[in-house]
Amino acid sequence: MTARRRHRVVVVGGGFGGLETVNRLAGASVDITLVDQRNHHIFQPLLYQVATASLATSEIAWPLRALFRDRPEVTTLLAAVTGVDLAGGRVPLDRGESLDYDTLVLATGARHAYFGHEEWEPFAPGLKTLEDATTIRRRILMAFEEAEREDDPATRSALLTFVIVGAGPTGVELAGTIAELARTTLKSDFRRIDPRSARIVLIEAGLRVLAGYPEDLSTYARRSLESLGVEVELLAPVTGCTGEGVVHGGRTLAARTVIWAAGVKASPAAGWLGAPTDASGRLKVLPDLTVPGHPEIFAIGDTVTIEGPAGKPVPGIAPAAKQQGAHVARLIKARLAGASAPPFVYHHQGSLAQIGKQRAVIDFGWIRLRGALAWWIWGVAHIYFLIGVRARLIVAINWLWIHTLDQRSARLITQGQPPVDPSTRKGVAR
Amino acid sequence: MTARRRHRVVVVGGGFGGLETVNRLAGASVDITLVDQRNHHIFQPLLYQVATASLATSEIAWPLRALFRDRPEVTTLLAAVTGVDLAGGRVPLDRGESLDYDTLVLATGARHAYFGHEEWEPFAPGLKTLEDATTIRRRILMAFEEAEREDDPATRSALLTFVIVGAGPTGVELAGTIAELARTTLKSDFRRIDPRSARIVLIEAGLRVLAGYPEDLSTYARRSLESLGVEVELLAPVTGCTGEGVVHGGRTLAARTVIWAAGVKASPAAGWLGAPTDASGRLKVLPDLTVPGHPEIFAIGDTVTIEGPAGKPVPGIAPAAKQQGAHVARLIKARLAGASAPPFVYHHQGSLAQIGKQRAVIDFGWIRLRGALAWWIWGVAHIYFLIGVRARLIVAINWLWIHTLDQRSARLITQGQPPVDPSTRKGVAR
Repeated sequence: MTARRRHRVVVVGGGFGGLETVNRLAGASVDITLVDQRNHHIFQPLLYQVATASLATSEIAWPLRALFRDRPEVTTLLAAVTGVDLAGGRVPLDRGESLDYDTLVLATGARHAYFGHEEWEPFAPGLKTLEDATTIRRRILMAFEEAEREDDPATRSALLTFVIVGAGPTGVELAGTIAELARTTLKSDFRRIDPRSARIVLIEAGLRVLAGYPEDLSTYARRSLESLGVEVELLAPVTGCTGEGVVHGGRTLAARTVIWAAGVKASPAAGWLGAPTDASGRLKVLPDLTVPGHPEIFAIGDTVTIEGPAGKPVPGIAPAAKQQGAHVARLIKARLAGASAPPFVYHHQGSLAQIGKQRAVIDFGWIRLRGALAWWIWGVAHIYFLIGVRARLIVAINWLWIHTLDQRSARLITQGQPPVDPSTRKGVAR
Repeated sequence: MTARRRHRVVVVGGGFGGLETVNRLAGASVDITLVDQRNHHIFQPLLYQVATASLATSEIAWPLRALFRDRPEVTTLLAAVTGVDLAGGRVPLDRGESLDYDTLVLATGARHAYFGHEEWEPFAPGLKTLEDATTIRRRILMAFEEAEREDDPATRSALLTFVIVGAGPTGVELAGTIAELARTTLKSDFRRIDPRSARIVLIEAGLRVLAGYPEDLSTYARRSLESLGVEVELLAPVTGCTGEGVVHGGRTLAARTVIWAAGVKASPAAGWLGAPTDASGRLKVLPDLTVPGHPEIFAIGDTVTIEGPAGKPVPGIAPAAKQQGAHVARLIKARLAGASAPPFVYHHQGSLAQIGKQRAVIDFGWIRLRGALAWWIWGVAHIYFLIGVRARLIVAINWLWIHTLDQRSARLITQGQPPVDPSTRKGVAR
């Protein structure tokens, strides 16, 4: 009698979906390999707080392999996947080695997209990774530092103009937090400029901010932003990003700091499979989240598009990715037991966005909240979903400090060239 | 009657010395400009804990201008000083502008030095800035990740060999912490390698570790390191650092991670003044800390060399720089009042070094401590000297977690090239 080989599951991507798949496979008779290009899982919903100097990177990121230290059947690999060998049942890696799978789970996420204008990226970085966040943080803080040294009024004004393109949750949260940074945190810190005079401009191509929310919450969000001093420009599609600023409506808005929060593009997983996608490159998967023609391959999270309740697509948010990861784990376990499982059904638990201190919107479907109560629920919910007691304690302490003293602790200009290198004054980071 | 211009003090450098000067000048009738190339003050004594993934950058660094937000007479500038115009009483900055001074305080610190072999730096980075710390952290963590993927035993062994050059306090603290990282924090995290098999080698040219401490404490420190699994090689001057490893005694020790903790070189302040220095480039100042021939220019901290009690030079540590900063502020105030002040006298309050959990050495002069009690005093003292309640709370929480769960939260590989870029496998960082 020979020992039977255990079922091999390869999970590509350690975001919310991939992590949940591995978590929910605990106890199953499988060998799991989790591959990611980075060594850490990020709590994406708070990444904008790293970009705006409210939190440190280690408060919203956890080393992946530490999360599975007590699961000997889980191997974590820091590597880049270069494709999928469908015939061989193998995932080739960047150094020529490959991983054999019986079941493959693609949870490779998305990057920001520039509607075909990738040349805008150096001037308008997006926010997906920890490096993105520290890059944006450096640019925001350096703009104030440069302005303090600048004598030319036009240049100074461009330095003190911060443009956020896209008024979805990330754009709204960035705009609100940058406004608070300028108007409260930094207000007494400079001697030649008044940070409160900074312009924060939120540009949106559509009709309203937070388009995915009910209209009354959108209106509340816009008014809240305006009361924080954010200029909201709606129906304003951006037609160019340069070192000078942002072009829309034929005009150039002079701004040294532009942040892109306007669109995402799925990771190249669909290309690896040669499978059909939507316009944003998201894989079209079957109702059980498998790739058409490949029941052994699952794809989840921002990598895919799938219809949710009422015919609306499942949104690209953390709870959706986690539910999909849980579904995949359930189905793998059922198959190992020779059983089947019902197709994936998405349960929308609600939408939350923070605009500023004491200002947030929540849409639970059955009830809508806004203002201080919504803000407290937002805070408690986000702390609850962090991993581990330590991160929860430390984020709570940092928020307490921000709330009571308006001090943001992570105001450090690091990474990249030394701060006074002339090249950092240009649009190109790293 | 015209308003009399206030006395202008320019302080170059926001380390311990510069900060203390500005702090102690509170209430004096002076206008102060604090210039630094970075936007933050660093708590240097704990920088090695950032390099070894125990603490986050924002826990030991504070934005300089935030520290003086309530002092309207203090202007903070993020800029590089390029020299001193002695005749004009001006400090030129990197963009052609300049700062007029009545009193100039040079507190520009030191960088690590390679005994004339600057070509070793890419292979053996030193530890002075936050970027240095995250670079070293990335190298240490990447070495384990690379080893997990490596099949060749010789390469794997080189990846799992960590060499620290120089057994002063920084070298000892780095070696001890890396040993704990490998032996406890990471012990269950890998599947193909056993991190406990990592070699940590501390190489010292001199006769003993912690040469500045009494001999019994040196012996205790060496034995403690050895019990943590550190190989201590004494009387071993390094004659080369390459991408392959470290050369000493005619042999090459194959190691992918080499950290330099062997020597410092003063910043170029002496060159700006054309003033005499010691062999390490440190300015020779008068007993009142002024530069010979220039009573209006002070130099303090690691920029200078000065004799302390018993003819021994004042050590290059934080308390010495702070005492010097306080002396300068006192003398400036006295001069403004038309009085004089006694020369600078250094009071040595003690030397502390941590080796590992429950292991530290303290030399107060009148009493010497080692072991668990010394470790607790070390911890309390370091928390006490951090700035602000928030940082103290958060560092305490992180240490509690490290102490009870062996988990180090800041194990994030960030900055620089993407983790799987081949260039990170080479010796050159950034």
